[in-house]
Amino acid sequence: MKIKLVEVGLRDGLQNESVTLPTEVKKEIAVRLLHAGVKHLEVSSFVSPKWIPQLKDAEELFHLLPVRDDVTYRALVPNLKGLTRALMTPASEYAVFMSASESHNLKNINKNIADTLITIKEVVQLATEKGKPVRGYVSTVFGCPYEGNIAMSQVVHICEQLIEMGIYEISLGDTIGVATPKRVKEVIQSVRQSVPLHQLAGHFHDTRGMGVVNSYVAVEEGITTLDSAIGGLGGCPYAPGASGNVSTEDLVYLFDREGIETGLNLTELNETSLFLQEIFAKPLPSKVFQSYVAQKEA
Amino acid sequence: MKIKLVEVGLRDGLQNESVTLPTEVKKEIAVRLLHAGVKHLEVSSFVSPKWIPQLKDAEELFHLLPVRDDVTYRALVPNLKGLTRALMTPASEYAVFMSASESHNLKNINKNIADTLITIKEVVQLATEKGKPVRGYVSTVFGCPYEGNIAMSQVVHICEQLIEMGIYEISLGDTIGVATPKRVKEVIQSVRQSVPLHQLAGHFHDTRGMGVVNSYVAVEEGITTLDSAIGGLGGCPYAPGASGNVSTEDLVYLFDREGIETGLNLTELNETSLFLQEIFAKPLPSKVFQSYVAQKEA
Repeated sequence: MKIKLVEVGLRDGLQNESVTLPTEVKKEIAVRLLHAGVKHLEVSSFVSPKWIPQLKDAEELFHLLPVRDDVTYRALVPNLKGLTRALMTPASEYAVFMSASESHNLKNINKNIADTLITIKEVVQLATEKGKPVRGYVSTVFGCPYEGNIAMSQVVHICEQLIEMGIYEISLGDTIGVATPKRVKEVIQSVRQSVPLHQLAGHFHDTRGMGVVNSYVAVEEGITTLDSAIGGLGGCPYAPGASGNVSTEDLVYLFDREGIETGLNLTELNETSLFLQEIFAKPLPSKVFQSYVAQKEA
Repeated sequence: MKIKLVEVGLRDGLQNESVTLPTEVKKEIAVRLLHAGVKHLEVSSFVSPKWIPQLKDAEELFHLLPVRDDVTYRALVPNLKGLTRALMTPASEYAVFMSASESHNLKNINKNIADTLITIKEVVQLATEKGKPVRGYVSTVFGCPYEGNIAMSQVVHICEQLIEMGIYEISLGDTIGVATPKRVKEVIQSVRQSVPLHQLAGHFHDTRGMGVVNSYVAVEEGITTLDSAIGGLGGCPYAPGASGNVSTEDLVYLFDREGIETGLNLTELNETSLFLQEIFAKPLPSKVFQSYVAQKEA
């Protein structure tokens, strides 16, 4: 059995970190991730630099990446303007994003869901004309900070519309890290009625330490694509020890021992996190990584 | 459905912390844990104070505890000498410990397994004469730092001997936090051939972030007793972010949302960890607790 891991540390991870990294350092992280075996790399985002200053060097970073036919370099794009910028770079595919929750979508994108879907449709049409695949992130699928659990019918309806537009994969996001296995199973079992399992990905945050168990249960439910971030980057900068995305190392440790292939080398991942931890000068949240550091120092 | 959580923070947690707490503070932690609903509290250990200075105040601490008929106060005892000390206190039950690994047992207890079993038998006999139940910890069941995976036949044989002696519950320990669900299932499915599930407990460490998923899978396999430590106490003092026992808060969050009763109040547990974190002046490993702190500060 094989799991496809999508590395989102450079984008979802860094956009939540308060220390801004130089472009050359981001390139170095990317090169180390490729060396560890990463084949699906979300590189950056073409949202307005005013929103996320950390990612304002997106163009430059894409141009610095090694040319690799066997690697997917993904760019997040919020709208046609972002896509137009991204089209000038060597990004090999794009990702759009929205929320399953009306309140969270308004707060995050400043638009209602209906208008967001129109924007996404424009992006998918142009990208498809250019021969590029588009992934869709749907956030707060497992719970919203404002609305609690979102109605399953709404989650499913959004996924159906995205697939109909031509989006090839939907990443179901536990944006605030509230889910536990019961909700994970309910969501997957509902959405798979409309969207085939191979077009779904699980995107779990480890805010409450549930990232590993939720990823495990998603795979039990038939999901074969999971998002994760090197070192568990992306924790709330105001909470020491608080976590962001489930860490790539924790998932690779899990799957290695479960006999499930990821194609990634755990030692190289840990060394990449060590490089990152020295830059950030604070402990990264990944527990597999921290136990690697402890063993190395012993 | 109900899960019995055994709080081991005061013993397994503190014995791995480098900061020694005053007895009055330990008492205060115990009182707060009782207030949060804890009914099974491992209070301290009667090993030689030379081995674990942190727990040298075991007698005094037991005498300070509130009298509670509905609460189990457990004392760890290594041998007859320890039991003799423990018998002078209000401890309501005892626990013995050994390793499934010959090398780990020698390193930890300075005896081979055969001799350890003789000692344990003496302890169980005297405790039984005094009308007190004895629990047994078997460590490195899911993996040993020196021997890797221990032969299942050896694990099962040790458990059989302990039950035959009169031990009422065996806590299967992932002492170094290496297990993943596959091994957890294998161990439980093997041991349950000889020991009924209601006499087994899962004792997981979160060293590599697998404590929650392993606890979850153990419950799926029919285990209804789990050990955990408030705040995730017991991490390696030399590794920032490294974890000890799976945290009580993380398990209570998980089970609350899964619709499984624990009888514990999550807010009271988080407040207890906040008290502890201020004493230790370092972030505790529990992610549920850290997200509680972040929300409180927001």
